[in-house]
Amino acid sequence: MNKVVDAPAPPYYAVIAPAELVEDIRGYPELAAKLGELAREQPGFLGIEAGFQKGFALAVSYWASLEAIDDWRRNARHVIAKEKGKSDWFEKYVTRIARVERVY
Amino acid sequence: MNKVVDAPAPPYYAVIAPAELVEDIRGYPELAAKLGELAREQPGFLGIEAGFQKGFALAVSYWASLEAIDDWRRNARHVIAKEKGKSDWFEKYVTRIARVERVY
Repeated sequence: MNKVVDAPAPPYYAVIAPAELVEDIRGYPELAAKLGELAREQPGFLGIEAGFQKGFALAVSYWASLEAIDDWRRNARHVIAKEKGKSDWFEKYVTRIARVERVY
Repeated sequence: MNKVVDAPAPPYYAVIAPAELVEDIRGYPELAAKLGELAREQPGFLGIEAGFQKGFALAVSYWASLEAIDDWRRNARHVIAKEKGKSDWFEKYVTRIARVERVY
């Protein structure tokens, strides 16, 4: 998660997930690592990039299609983990689905 | 840069900029701050989110239109600063232009 992802030529899709974290994030790094593993097992997953600041996490995952993203979102384990994350670690978060159109 | 951006309803555009950094990044935080300021002055700028890891930076800026992004890219000061960044601080980087289509 600390390398620039080598994705194929566009178009492909990005899931942009910024989150404001509560002060006590014990357990969050483990959840993030587990979600990354789950994504890697998913067909159509192209890679993930992430960064952090105090109280803030930003992750961008890349996918071959909207269907691949939907499949991932339906992954029960993912959903369960995310619901837990929502209530425990996140002050505020959104998930933005975007179509990558150009790469320089 | 450590808050979730409150963008208007989609569609809007994201500039996703991951970069692998060299070991000695003296001067880079100042450049990043300056580029953020320049973006904020630009018409169509909606906000920016960023995070870091050792040797890695990830920034996502949001824009009202592709034209706003092009205007920003043409900003001479930005281009100059970026060229400097390319040679001095970045091992590898890409810029992905994406259309945000859905937000949860």
